[in-house]
Amino acid sequence: MTKKNILYAQSGGVTAVINATACGVIQTARKNKNRIGKVYAGVEGIVGALTENIVDTSHESASAIQALRHTPGAAFGSARYKLRGLDESRAEYERLIEVFKAHDIGYFFYNGGNDSMDTAHKVSRMGDAMGYPISCIGVPKTVDNDLAGTDNCPGFGSVAKYIAISTQEAAIDVRSMKQTKVFILEVMGRHAGWIAASGGLAGHKPHEPPHIILFPEIPFDEKAFLRRVKQAVSRWDNCVIVVSEGVRRKNGKFLSDAGRKDAFGHTQLGGVAPVLAALIERKFGYKYHYAVVDYLQRSARHIASKTDVEQAYAVGKAAVELALEGKSGVMPVIVRQSDAPYRWKIGVEALKNVANKEKKLPRRYISRDGFGITAAGRRYLEPLIRGEDYPPYKNGLPKYVQLKLRRVPKKLRKRFLIKA
Amino acid sequence: MTKKNILYAQSGGVTAVINATACGVIQTARKNKNRIGKVYAGVEGIVGALTENIVDTSHESASAIQALRHTPGAAFGSARYKLRGLDESRAEYERLIEVFKAHDIGYFFYNGGNDSMDTAHKVSRMGDAMGYPISCIGVPKTVDNDLAGTDNCPGFGSVAKYIAISTQEAAIDVRSMKQTKVFILEVMGRHAGWIAASGGLAGHKPHEPPHIILFPEIPFDEKAFLRRVKQAVSRWDNCVIVVSEGVRRKNGKFLSDAGRKDAFGHTQLGGVAPVLAALIERKFGYKYHYAVVDYLQRSARHIASKTDVEQAYAVGKAAVELALEGKSGVMPVIVRQSDAPYRWKIGVEALKNVANKEKKLPRRYISRDGFGITAAGRRYLEPLIRGEDYPPYKNGLPKYVQLKLRRVPKKLRKRFLIKA
Repeated sequence: MTKKNILYAQSGGVTAVINATACGVIQTARKNKNRIGKVYAGVEGIVGALTENIVDTSHESASAIQALRHTPGAAFGSARYKLRGLDESRAEYERLIEVFKAHDIGYFFYNGGNDSMDTAHKVSRMGDAMGYPISCIGVPKTVDNDLAGTDNCPGFGSVAKYIAISTQEAAIDVRSMKQTKVFILEVMGRHAGWIAASGGLAGHKPHEPPHIILFPEIPFDEKAFLRRVKQAVSRWDNCVIVVSEGVRRKNGKFLSDAGRKDAFGHTQLGGVAPVLAALIERKFGYKYHYAVVDYLQRSARHIASKTDVEQAYAVGKAAVELALEGKSGVMPVIVRQSDAPYRWKIGVEALKNVANKEKKLPRRYISRDGFGITAAGRRYLEPLIRGEDYPPYKNGLPKYVQLKLRRVPKKLRKRFLIKA
Repeated sequence: MTKKNILYAQSGGVTAVINATACGVIQTARKNKNRIGKVYAGVEGIVGALTENIVDTSHESASAIQALRHTPGAAFGSARYKLRGLDESRAEYERLIEVFKAHDIGYFFYNGGNDSMDTAHKVSRMGDAMGYPISCIGVPKTVDNDLAGTDNCPGFGSVAKYIAISTQEAAIDVRSMKQTKVFILEVMGRHAGWIAASGGLAGHKPHEPPHIILFPEIPFDEKAFLRRVKQAVSRWDNCVIVVSEGVRRKNGKFLSDAGRKDAFGHTQLGGVAPVLAALIERKFGYKYHYAVVDYLQRSARHIASKTDVEQAYAVGKAAVELALEGKSGVMPVIVRQSDAPYRWKIGVEALKNVANKEKKLPRRYISRDGFGITAAGRRYLEPLIRGEDYPPYKNGLPKYVQLKLRRVPKKLRKRFLIKA
């Protein structure tokens, strides 16, 4: 039996630790050279797989692969490209199988979130249907932590740590400054409030910031919100707010769609923080500051969670082990064994149970008034940000690796066009 | 001779290391117990000094004082409160001297930027005029690095390191994502481009991000800017921009004053990043992201520069030593002895040479096209971000100290009202 190659692809928004998963995949495959061929990687994820733009990781040195463990972003590139149903996107699925055949791919590892798990599931079915069985393993990754079937998702712990620390540090700043009364930190999470909730780790008691967290799961109640802002400023002299970009009004409209126009009459594509700031300013005249951290939060490898790095590596390693066990249509997951002391292990879940589900922040993790996290929420979140895993530095900056990314020669005569 | 007390006050915007200076002051004073009384600190800086709201730091444990070294913000509170000329603000200067007399203050340490050095200078003159000579020492602090008389200013190195790393990490994110073409990082620096320049440390070659830096020192040239954005995207597939909040048009108007109105017709108090993003979007339709880090950049003690922490401590220590030498009207400064290897020492500058001057980013540190930094700029900046000085952690979060802040009983019968 000839050894089959792995095709590994990164999908969707990046995280501080998705490359730690790549490191786990490649190092584990190298340790099993007798049974596995090469590890190939799609350039820009599934787009590279479809267009036959593939990298051969065997040209990368052991130290470069080791450095992936501490390098943020997607080392092979990523894309938001969703394959639809088998009927609708048939040509794409067939193309993938052709590429697999041409490059002797026996294992397809898709490292992403909900959509990607659905794609991985369908690729596995298409392989069977076309008489080219392929071991399809979904590998969990998302900062949003909304992936079903796993206690938590690699990528989340590090953004949670960054947001908790940023909230803590900004709150100290606000407390220091006599004049500033309100600080607003806008964080990611279009549909789920996991990241916003992590800001809650910065304080333990009611007077400790953040004083208000706004979740996408809780419709925005302007009156109650403003009352709470006023209360915080009068009681504690300032109000620190963590707000999820996905907060909506009761009518379902995003709060960030405030209909603001610029000087030219164009609708402003602003975030939610300036909307809240303007609201507070108009009502109370408080001096405010706000921050929108955007990409920084999901790429802040300099302050990644050690727990997160270890779990990200572990799911990559487990993907190879599952493939070697002949599994397909599955995803390695993180199983929480206990909160305190925090213990976890790797488990396995069928992709069909994971695909297209969205794990929202449970109501019991949100305080009754909707503006904070509960003790249960804290018990869940806290272990995920534990431990520091600093990258090496040179001249004051982290030494992140840039791979050589040597391409595999194309074999298929037909080109495949990607719709932008 | 009775031992006189120190009054220490923190002023203006905080930094990640101003408390390291406080630590240097208090530890050095404690080591000289035979000659110095207590170290008092103004609550909210000069405001506390005027209103007789003063903290006695002798109640703080040695370990709490040591923890100041790794705690961001202003441990005693800070305020933006400018004393004017001796004639205009005579009552305030006189009040200060009264407070000094009442609490046996022999040394006044004012830890701040340009304005504060001016105030310290005037307090020293007023003490002489009122027959209560006081040793006034200015202690340098500002993230803006615009203080004259010192090679660099404590507080700047850490914000520079944070911005350089954030630029580097965001650039890796943008490079990873197929669809995103433009990333804009808005940084502080209303009048001087030092912080924006530090973003330039993230890349070494033209193709390495940031591809564009916008400085307050260079009038915004929309055409040249857009040309450069397009060039970067076509050559390198994306464009990373670091922009100072203080960038102005040729007519002197801040770029952030774009005349944007919200749905209610109120002018939006937005930043410059969304203005640039909207400009690029309208012209080219590129998908963009932007971040506004605001307070986070100056409170990011979690990734402070070791050089900065050491210098911040050193100026605090030097302030006490200068006071013990009988000096007044001076400021300890940082003197650069060589770039490579980087060597520095503490020097002394007269406050009258420092007060009310603004050290802008020299033109020779800005590249000819106005969009980047030169080799000379890099030589200046790089040593300042060197070294990491991690705080201790507990449960995933830095262990920052909150002092007891025990108040000194008031002695003056007259209250002093501060105008808001």
